[in-house]
Amino acid sequence: MKLATYKDGSRDGQLVVVSRDLSTAHFATGIATRLQQVLDDWNYLSPQLEDLYQTLNGGRARHAFAFEPAQCMAPLPRAYQWADGSAYINHVELVRRARNAQVPESFYTDPLMYQGGSDDFLGPCDDARFASEESGIDFEAELAVVTGDVPMGATPGQALEGVRLLMLANDWSLRHLIPAELAKGFGFFQSKPATAFSPVAATPDELGGAWREGRVHLTLSTAWNGRTVGLTEAGPEMTFHFGQLIAHIAKTRNVRAGSIVGSGTVSNKDWSRGYACIAEKRAIETIEHGEPKTPFMRFGDTVRIEMKGADGQSVFGAIDQDVAPVSA
Amino acid sequence: MKLATYKDGSRDGQLVVVSRDLSTAHFATGIATRLQQVLDDWNYLSPQLEDLYQTLNGGRARHAFAFEPAQCMAPLPRAYQWADGSAYINHVELVRRARNAQVPESFYTDPLMYQGGSDDFLGPCDDARFASEESGIDFEAELAVVTGDVPMGATPGQALEGVRLLMLANDWSLRHLIPAELAKGFGFFQSKPATAFSPVAATPDELGGAWREGRVHLTLSTAWNGRTVGLTEAGPEMTFHFGQLIAHIAKTRNVRAGSIVGSGTVSNKDWSRGYACIAEKRAIETIEHGEPKTPFMRFGDTVRIEMKGADGQSVFGAIDQDVAPVSA
Repeated sequence: MKLATYKDGSRDGQLVVVSRDLSTAHFATGIATRLQQVLDDWNYLSPQLEDLYQTLNGGRARHAFAFEPAQCMAPLPRAYQWADGSAYINHVELVRRARNAQVPESFYTDPLMYQGGSDDFLGPCDDARFASEESGIDFEAELAVVTGDVPMGATPGQALEGVRLLMLANDWSLRHLIPAELAKGFGFFQSKPATAFSPVAATPDELGGAWREGRVHLTLSTAWNGRTVGLTEAGPEMTFHFGQLIAHIAKTRNVRAGSIVGSGTVSNKDWSRGYACIAEKRAIETIEHGEPKTPFMRFGDTVRIEMKGADGQSVFGAIDQDVAPVSA
Repeated sequence: MKLATYKDGSRDGQLVVVSRDLSTAHFATGIATRLQQVLDDWNYLSPQLEDLYQTLNGGRARHAFAFEPAQCMAPLPRAYQWADGSAYINHVELVRRARNAQVPESFYTDPLMYQGGSDDFLGPCDDARFASEESGIDFEAELAVVTGDVPMGATPGQALEGVRLLMLANDWSLRHLIPAELAKGFGFFQSKPATAFSPVAATPDELGGAWREGRVHLTLSTAWNGRTVGLTEAGPEMTFHFGQLIAHIAKTRNVRAGSIVGSGTVSNKDWSRGYACIAEKRAIETIEHGEPKTPFMRFGDTVRIEMKGADGQSVFGAIDQDVAPVSA
């Protein structure tokens, strides 16, 4: 099942069911109006949405309309939790190697995660607005899951059963603000502005065999200003799977329905696959040439993030954003 | 106006209006059922609640009932943001001095804040449940505000106008988990379990002249196992006022309605006023005697946090929690 949230001027938008091929959509009116509502009462509402999804896929939905990603908010336009991991340890290794720092041994067994802001997400085609080009504007292409309720103390296996939906995320980062902010010791704040998500959130069964062991075994494509800069494999090198990330959060507290958990930027040891964030490209340049060459993003730049299934069809639709100055 | 959220078995509870003296309450049914709904549409809904509040205070509300704090969830049982500051720099100075570390100069101009989990708050009288007594269980008594929409780039003055409600918070902390977690560099996670809030959230006008320049000029009382351990002044030594804290978050992103922003543990230079968290007492002991003497909390311990107005009446009602093991 594929779900999206259409803009209607309200804070939470209108829930729509989207056909598997992303060609058509149907309002979920009569079942639920908001995605959080479905997550709050998944066992009761999701089968009804699934029925509508099958009808829509069969071309028999009477009020179907053409699906337009530009009309989408984030599937959850605001959420009660956004917790982002750094689950591809290769990314951590590269960034640290570029600054001649070691990766602590514990990083291979204890996931690195940060608590992000979740009150104001961006839709997949919304402009990403920043006050200044000088802050080191960078995209981060990654995967994210939306959970049901996961009780405190859940094991990674139990936590994995709490995964309800999958989507793509663009975890915007202001790189030049990060060193001073992390030096304060309390994590990110100003260096992590609003995150964007893919048009569609999909149930894990939509991925078939590509969803296994808590990882998505598909290729994530990232294009910057129309040029493909990354075709990274999301599966094999994800050091911590989503169940492990969720269980990390649930260690000392309950994780409640509608929590979004991110993988962190997808990263591969094989540099020829390219990159899912500019910081990684710059780390590689620093390792190779002693200094970074690729600049960060400028106003007017674009980034497009997409993932295709084994059938070559886009699974979640594309995140496709322009970088823009804050409106006057 | 004073608002609370009554337990009804649902995730968001039922909004009630509470009389100024906290003696009676009235369901807000017909106006709004949930507090987030009111924050989403404050200008339209809050005057209607204010009318009901006046009727209730006048003893003329026809379906009023006795107000019971134990029936309360947190005013916002879950929120789209919980951002906690460390606005009393004296606390930072003490903790650092105890471990022979300097306070960086920037800490006096740039607020220290962390992004907290907001999907699962505790009610004021809910047990605080932990897996182990060995994790350094500590309370943190503080103030918190709930905001309306504050746009990116707001000044501290503009941000202050976004304050809708005030309440008390108990920012539970697992002290022994903090050093390793902060050493990872991405901020708190497992060391900050679910936060509890006072029974009542009050509009700033309820505090009269005690709410000025973004600070609450009243005394916060903290009692541990029935013994008062802190009578700390919340006003004069709050280095960063709430407008500054909110503007810090809004620097690179919008802050949306229903965001909760905390002051951090209230702390005074005059040690005779006592403490609002055990960590501070232990820091003082370390400075004085070379090592901490006061142990952290044990299962069965209690903590009570309350603030009285100039009239001697409790403003927000008391946070009154027992420490308990995770249920089997």
